[in-house]
Amino acid sequence: MGNAAAAGRVPTLAAIRDAAARLEGWAVKTPLLDSPALDAKLGGRLLVKAEVLQRTGSFKFRGAYNRMSRIPAAERAQGVVAFSSGNHAQGVAAAAQLLGMPAAIVMPADAPKMKVANTRGYGAEVVFYDRYKEDREAVAAHVLAERRATLVRPYDDPYVIAGQGTAGLELVEQALARGIALDAVLAPSSGGGLISGIAIAVAALSPGTTVHSAEPEGFEDTARSLAAGRRLSNAGGGTTICDALMAEQPGELTFAAMQGRVESGFAVSEAEVARAMAVAFEYFKLVVEPGGATALAAVLSGKVPIEGRTVAVVCSGGNVDPGLYCRLLAEVA
Amino acid sequence: MGNAAAAGRVPTLAAIRDAAARLEGWAVKTPLLDSPALDAKLGGRLLVKAEVLQRTGSFKFRGAYNRMSRIPAAERAQGVVAFSSGNHAQGVAAAAQLLGMPAAIVMPADAPKMKVANTRGYGAEVVFYDRYKEDREAVAAHVLAERRATLVRPYDDPYVIAGQGTAGLELVEQALARGIALDAVLAPSSGGGLISGIAIAVAALSPGTTVHSAEPEGFEDTARSLAAGRRLSNAGGGTTICDALMAEQPGELTFAAMQGRVESGFAVSEAEVARAMAVAFEYFKLVVEPGGATALAAVLSGKVPIEGRTVAVVCSGGNVDPGLYCRLLAEVA
Repeated sequence: MGNAAAAGRVPTLAAIRDAAARLEGWAVKTPLLDSPALDAKLGGRLLVKAEVLQRTGSFKFRGAYNRMSRIPAAERAQGVVAFSSGNHAQGVAAAAQLLGMPAAIVMPADAPKMKVANTRGYGAEVVFYDRYKEDREAVAAHVLAERRATLVRPYDDPYVIAGQGTAGLELVEQALARGIALDAVLAPSSGGGLISGIAIAVAALSPGTTVHSAEPEGFEDTARSLAAGRRLSNAGGGTTICDALMAEQPGELTFAAMQGRVESGFAVSEAEVARAMAVAFEYFKLVVEPGGATALAAVLSGKVPIEGRTVAVVCSGGNVDPGLYCRLLAEVA
Repeated sequence: MGNAAAAGRVPTLAAIRDAAARLEGWAVKTPLLDSPALDAKLGGRLLVKAEVLQRTGSFKFRGAYNRMSRIPAAERAQGVVAFSSGNHAQGVAAAAQLLGMPAAIVMPADAPKMKVANTRGYGAEVVFYDRYKEDREAVAAHVLAERRATLVRPYDDPYVIAGQGTAGLELVEQALARGIALDAVLAPSSGGGLISGIAIAVAALSPGTTVHSAEPEGFEDTARSLAAGRRLSNAGGGTTICDALMAEQPGELTFAAMQGRVESGFAVSEAEVARAMAVAFEYFKLVVEPGGATALAAVLSGKVPIEGRTVAVVCSGGNVDPGLYCRLLAEVA
């Protein structure tokens, strides 16, 4: 698929509104929270879109359900296959359960226990692979062929992007309803489904607002790709506590959607992520997983100016094992 | 004040609606959350009113702001005094800041550090006393006389009860809007401001719903008082991790409001509280402090039947030091 072809498949605001209608009654309209006490310290206004409160504990349910609700009735019995480190897995599994479809999820063997347990809890079958030795797409292709199932891509799919974009649509509408003008919106990025969906909604409804991605250091492929104007991969070989943000490069379609809509990306350190998780604990009473806290970390670390400005961040997921969570809180106490 | 006199001062649904109007734009309309995954395990429907997301991290802001917004302009400069183990302190301090009034808060010397720091963060002065040796009312009376300030009682005040009742009003309206019929509503109880305010709203708007209080073992004065039909005190001498729920007996006014509206009370163990906090972490991604988790604990421990029923619990506060929080999560891991 060439760049022009990809650009032509980028979902519109209308597609996001259509996704919102599909999700009505199934997805949570997550609150846009603020903390006057934290704002006083920051000298600005920080809003948190609490996607940790979304069904399955992350935004991923939005895109999965929107995509899967389009599968024709005749193809539903064969079910779906997805590959995911955990949050997309849970989103697909929960959507499959609601739509009455079998689901097989290809997950890395080192995925967080909570994410594996929850995926099985929604009735899905989990197929493990070795993140460092096997190619997950090849493993998924094998499972797919075996079952004649539908592949639910984690991000590079117009319906998935439109579904994730409903988080951005809600965010903008919630801010407008309270008379709040947003200077900037930040969201975590891995393959880019969330950030690109949000960017489409923001560009259409709040054109004066800039949009930025946030990633862990060593996995800032989105930031580098945005700066270069073309898709670049991570150097590879690194590890991160942000298990949800390990995609190697932005998707073709998600990157096309980001073009002209996402201004830049930021990379945050593990210590900055841990501090953001502690701030979410203290000021927002939200459990945020490492990857879900990167946008908040980009603001709190001073990379994104907040003084005298209004910035919204998406806390995109809260599926973290209590052991890791408490180790990170203790590190910054 | 006799029983009849107290009954005559119990706020009405109209007073709660009036409080809701005062709180509009200041208090958070907290979401009523559910977890389909947890419901599948419980075989029933559990709804969580997430008051941890309230301004100041607990429901207490509602009552404090409603009460303090009634202080005549001529008396505001002398400020307010309150005594509190922490959540009422923060509610009063935040309301005072918004209303431009000085506030002095009498707190036990062993109050959680986070609650002390937050109270000061809202610009209030903190006056410590020894919880086990000094009478906090006497200490507060001294501070009051010195300053000619207005005392903001933590629970036994019609405006405070009506303010806390707005949480119940929202809960019932949120359930009705989703077509959900509630079998039971539970909330934590200390002096009884929250449970009595909620009970007034529920009795008026959803008379088929039973209301129950939840307390830590050894501090179940509300449960015992409800069973006896008269106010009883705790035996005393015990300690609890639920620092927010240590009142010795229900208030005169709050107990009058409970009569005929709160069916019964439940006592939960520390282990049950810790498990409820872990469930809030895992399924709802909410940070809930020990006292704030007692109603959830009463359901999860099986004391309140949930199978085949719909039960709403208020998670009333989330102001807990990370050290204690993680110690409790680790105990039940």
